[in-house]
Amino acid sequence: MKVSPQETSVGFIGLGIMGAPMAGHILKAGYRLRVYNRTKAKAEPLLAQGAHWAESIADLAKTSDVVVTIIGYPADVEATYLGAEGLVAHANPGAVLVDMTTSTPALAQRIAAEAAQRDVAVLDAPVSGGAGGAKNGKLTIMAGGDAAAFEDVNALLALMGPNVVLQGGPGAGQHTKAVNQIIISSTQLCIAEGLAYARKAGLDPRKVLASLSKGSAASFHLDNTAPKMIAGDTAPGFFVHHLVKDLEIAQSEAARAGLQLAGLETALERYRSLRDGGHAEDGAQAIFKLYEA
Amino acid sequence: MKVSPQETSVGFIGLGIMGAPMAGHILKAGYRLRVYNRTKAKAEPLLAQGAHWAESIADLAKTSDVVVTIIGYPADVEATYLGAEGLVAHANPGAVLVDMTTSTPALAQRIAAEAAQRDVAVLDAPVSGGAGGAKNGKLTIMAGGDAAAFEDVNALLALMGPNVVLQGGPGAGQHTKAVNQIIISSTQLCIAEGLAYARKAGLDPRKVLASLSKGSAASFHLDNTAPKMIAGDTAPGFFVHHLVKDLEIAQSEAARAGLQLAGLETALERYRSLRDGGHAEDGAQAIFKLYEA
Repeated sequence: MKVSPQETSVGFIGLGIMGAPMAGHILKAGYRLRVYNRTKAKAEPLLAQGAHWAESIADLAKTSDVVVTIIGYPADVEATYLGAEGLVAHANPGAVLVDMTTSTPALAQRIAAEAAQRDVAVLDAPVSGGAGGAKNGKLTIMAGGDAAAFEDVNALLALMGPNVVLQGGPGAGQHTKAVNQIIISSTQLCIAEGLAYARKAGLDPRKVLASLSKGSAASFHLDNTAPKMIAGDTAPGFFVHHLVKDLEIAQSEAARAGLQLAGLETALERYRSLRDGGHAEDGAQAIFKLYEA
Repeated sequence: MKVSPQETSVGFIGLGIMGAPMAGHILKAGYRLRVYNRTKAKAEPLLAQGAHWAESIADLAKTSDVVVTIIGYPADVEATYLGAEGLVAHANPGAVLVDMTTSTPALAQRIAAEAAQRDVAVLDAPVSGGAGGAKNGKLTIMAGGDAAAFEDVNALLALMGPNVVLQGGPGAGQHTKAVNQIIISSTQLCIAEGLAYARKAGLDPRKVLASLSKGSAASFHLDNTAPKMIAGDTAPGFFVHHLVKDLEIAQSEAARAGLQLAGLETALERYRSLRDGGHAEDGAQAIFKLYEA
């Protein structure tokens, strides 16, 4: 059954830098929203706007038609979905669960298979666009899983971003996100290296952007991230430690497929250096810090 | 004096994949155009449209107010400008010479300094945008050199691309181009790696692009080059061997400035592999060939 604000109770787990504004869009659209988060304090702004608090994941599962999750690491996803007190064990038959965490394709497939045995559909639907995209409802959503369940929740996902594409069966969303991360990590790295070069050459980095932004070096990150690098702004829209996690997933999947990706390996090594150098909680654009004199 | 079709005689050297259409724009705008090229046959289409042939570089220099060059390698630039029969020795006082080859900043500085002693201005003004940009008059032009000379020839450069920026003194155009090449090489590499991953994961690469092209992975190359990679199209708009040359210049300048750029080094290694694997004369997008099973 297709979701609607009148008929559908939505549960939301994970109210971090991404999840909080995403849940806010669902609430504003008029859905009955129940939320759960490890740290309850982060739920307060949503509760003040009319969201309900769930005392546990199991409680939230029992009272929701659709559950959306966006939580940190694959281990968190596994516990939240497959634990004895988790979503799959306690969801209502016919429910649709949507994991928007960037996690592993294999875990997405395992969760979908176990849930199917209880007549529960699980989609993997990681996102791209960072905190800005979450806030503005402009995320790109890359989905994998059952096509009918995807159609049912499409209108709900569209509240968080207009570009929602079903890429294939379970895990296909995670695989697509891996492609995205392979590209955005190297793109930010090469912009940081280019700007470091520009500075050393005595160029004005802003004037360099005026040339490059109209040519074949143009990109989302040249427009949106390079100015932050030039300004020395490391505020997180997307954490360095999360990007390292995403790249580790991509590299491990690539290796399993027999692919050696030198660009990915270089980006992973550079982002690990950044994380280990005290920048784990900075935004991914902080990669420019590695190239400061 | 500012250029105009009525008053200015233009010379053009280098009628390759880029130079031929660039010279064509100058001719179409009504300038008296004299051309020279190592292989005369490549000049024939322009001669048929009204361009004149110069028997030598010195001859061309003597009969031109402005000379534009776009030739292969720094060694060619050095010979063309600084040889005994070259442009600097034979240009008229007051002439402006514009080298649009991607070459080294140090050579650009040396040529500008030697030319200044003969009252000849030399701008370095390499371009970005490839064969498509050259054909459509949509190149990005990154200039370095004397500001007054730049103003004088601005209208002529604008015939080849609307985005012409003076980045600084002699060599600043070459340095800016190095930044551009640092970015576009890694960008194409990571797109090739992402698409290889997508294929191995069983995704439809075109559907993956539908997700990624609206998000933070968006770029000129994702829009324009990824579809060529998916289609297996290696036709040259910009030669692999020229990109290797450009990256070698960038790496050598970075090293001289005490910068170690891991992303650049990885891209250079991959493009050298591609060149040495029989793809020197393919387009730079052929990097995907390294990731075919």
